[in-house]
Amino acid sequence: MKIVCQKNELLKSVNIVMKAVPSKTTMPILECILIDATRGEIKFTTNDMELGIETVVNGSILEKGKIALDARLFSEIIRKLPENEVTIETDNKLQATILCEKAQFSISGKDGEDYPYLPFVEKDNSICISQFTLKEVIKQTIFSIAQNENNRMMTGELFEISDNILKVVSLDGHRISIRKIELKENYEKKKIVVPGKTLIEISKILSGETEDMVNIYFTKNHILFEFDNTIAVSRLIEGEYFRIEQMLSSDYETKLKINKKELLNCIDRATLLIKEGDKKPIIIGISDTSMELKINSQIGSMNEQISIEKEGKDILIGFNPRFLMDALRVIDDETITIYLVNPKAPCFIRDDAESYIYLILPVNFNA
Amino acid sequence: MKIVCQKNELLKSVNIVMKAVPSKTTMPILECILIDATRGEIKFTTNDMELGIETVVNGSILEKGKIALDARLFSEIIRKLPENEVTIETDNKLQATILCEKAQFSISGKDGEDYPYLPFVEKDNSICISQFTLKEVIKQTIFSIAQNENNRMMTGELFEISDNILKVVSLDGHRISIRKIELKENYEKKKIVVPGKTLIEISKILSGETEDMVNIYFTKNHILFEFDNTIAVSRLIEGEYFRIEQMLSSDYETKLKINKKELLNCIDRATLLIKEGDKKPIIIGISDTSMELKINSQIGSMNEQISIEKEGKDILIGFNPRFLMDALRVIDDETITIYLVNPKAPCFIRDDAESYIYLILPVNFNA
Repeated sequence: MKIVCQKNELLKSVNIVMKAVPSKTTMPILECILIDATRGEIKFTTNDMELGIETVVNGSILEKGKIALDARLFSEIIRKLPENEVTIETDNKLQATILCEKAQFSISGKDGEDYPYLPFVEKDNSICISQFTLKEVIKQTIFSIAQNENNRMMTGELFEISDNILKVVSLDGHRISIRKIELKENYEKKKIVVPGKTLIEISKILSGETEDMVNIYFTKNHILFEFDNTIAVSRLIEGEYFRIEQMLSSDYETKLKINKKELLNCIDRATLLIKEGDKKPIIIGISDTSMELKINSQIGSMNEQISIEKEGKDILIGFNPRFLMDALRVIDDETITIYLVNPKAPCFIRDDAESYIYLILPVNFNA
Repeated sequence: MKIVCQKNELLKSVNIVMKAVPSKTTMPILECILIDATRGEIKFTTNDMELGIETVVNGSILEKGKIALDARLFSEIIRKLPENEVTIETDNKLQATILCEKAQFSISGKDGEDYPYLPFVEKDNSICISQFTLKEVIKQTIFSIAQNENNRMMTGELFEISDNILKVVSLDGHRISIRKIELKENYEKKKIVVPGKTLIEISKILSGETEDMVNIYFTKNHILFEFDNTIAVSRLIEGEYFRIEQMLSSDYETKLKINKKELLNCIDRATLLIKEGDKKPIIIGISDTSMELKINSQIGSMNEQISIEKEGKDILIGFNPRFLMDALRVIDDETITIYLVNPKAPCFIRDDAESYIYLILPVNFNA
């Protein structure tokens, strides 16, 4: 194999495929990037057996071939080469020479034939949204997936398509995050659960531009994202997602409007008094015109009032401050509306159109 | 005590004194910032018993007093307060209330009387240089102090004043870094050894502006830096510094001029092939018009040529690549001159005026 590419093109492509290089693996070949120049285009592939990424690299093929090169080493070498044309050439002993200006590296590769193929995904069902929207909706929901693998379903996110609505849901047993996105067309009903890790990696390589689009294809077991020169294929989590409808009551006893930034900053300050790992709640008291926040710990105490507009009853309720902050950080509205029932029932932060709903369970506290 | 300051003034001062809060200490009071408002100005003090910092805070004293507050907690609280006026008030039970807009923190303090005074430094001998110059000269030499404490003298830097020259020297047994700075006046001869840690912390709080000055005072055991609203007092390292003159021969067999950036980038690339902790040398071959750099490791091999202007003999010599990079990174000249004698003798990187001299010992290698 012999290919020639600009350093910045190589670097861009390497950065994309690095997202699916496993940090630990029992298959050493997966620590490599497959460089495939057998079929008229140069393709980089990586695959951690859950997520696989393939991207086409701009460049010329002088001699067809393929090779697998250690991903970390190859990416570091490319990063540190001068900004110029790079030639990558392999011999029949799987030695690769990387040449750029007067710098010449020689490293050992592995046989490209041994690299596992990405699963084939039938491109039947698809939706099309902007890279900006996909990146945003991941950011706005990913924080409430479960971190540990005890309940695999909770480590994923529900993608539910119905007519022209994409609904994305994540939950971890203490809270639920829901975002609804309007699509440009109507689609068939579809419910899949995408691994959280896949979404985290994908969102890192999405451009985030509103004019760049991404096509998403589904099969029974796989999801495929197609954008720019790249496709990313991930397994889905099998099984039926949690029924969340019954938890989404719209009854409330207290409704209040509050400035989001003031509330977020106040909770952020209050958490200074909580040691890492300590489960101190923040206690919120709602009266007619103000919310009073209080925290008491061995380190000290803090209280603060924030002006609100209120309908309904007064209430005193405790929350894990981090759960409130996670939700507040991803809401763009300047003023938010919070719905409460009683100190044992979940609170809802939602807009009128229900384009977002954040449900958070309260915690017990000693008043 | 009751004082009122703007949040940003508090934050600026806290950031300065945090540099002398010890990370580990057997004296819990040293984990505090002393707030002293007993004498008409508000002063923050910290002291890790080697370095002590005192800074005057802009603000008003409504009630005289002093208190010691946990440095990390206090700094985090100040950081997260709204940008507004902050009132700090203490009661006779050493409880401190920090009030800003509607946010009110209450934390426990310690008796300010228990906080150890900074050592008194007679302001006799002094020199005056710009904060920019001091910050630069620390950066340009600090990397070659010894990291471990086995030889305490090597963990410091020599500051030698003679007439209108300040010479700063650091060495670690493998290399020596020397910088000479011209002072505006003539001063008495003086030689002191300043702890490297002190210089690292001081350089973090220097503004780095050429028009901001710093006065440096010396006594037998202490050095005092005075700048802006701040003084920093450090112990000195006792004893006589190494005699380096005999190592600074100006004889050479090979002299070469090379582009600094090309050389630095090339060595930086080469080190990709060296695993952390591995002691592979980079091998440099000097011929009439080019320098060839080579590295060979289990990971792979690399070679590159760089054009040079040479006088004298050809030579093949090995170096620890990190030592070369450390020196090259802090030299501003576009083209540098390197002097070599033989593969066992140190190399010198120096300018004609000897405003900098970097001596680096070579390492053995198998040719």
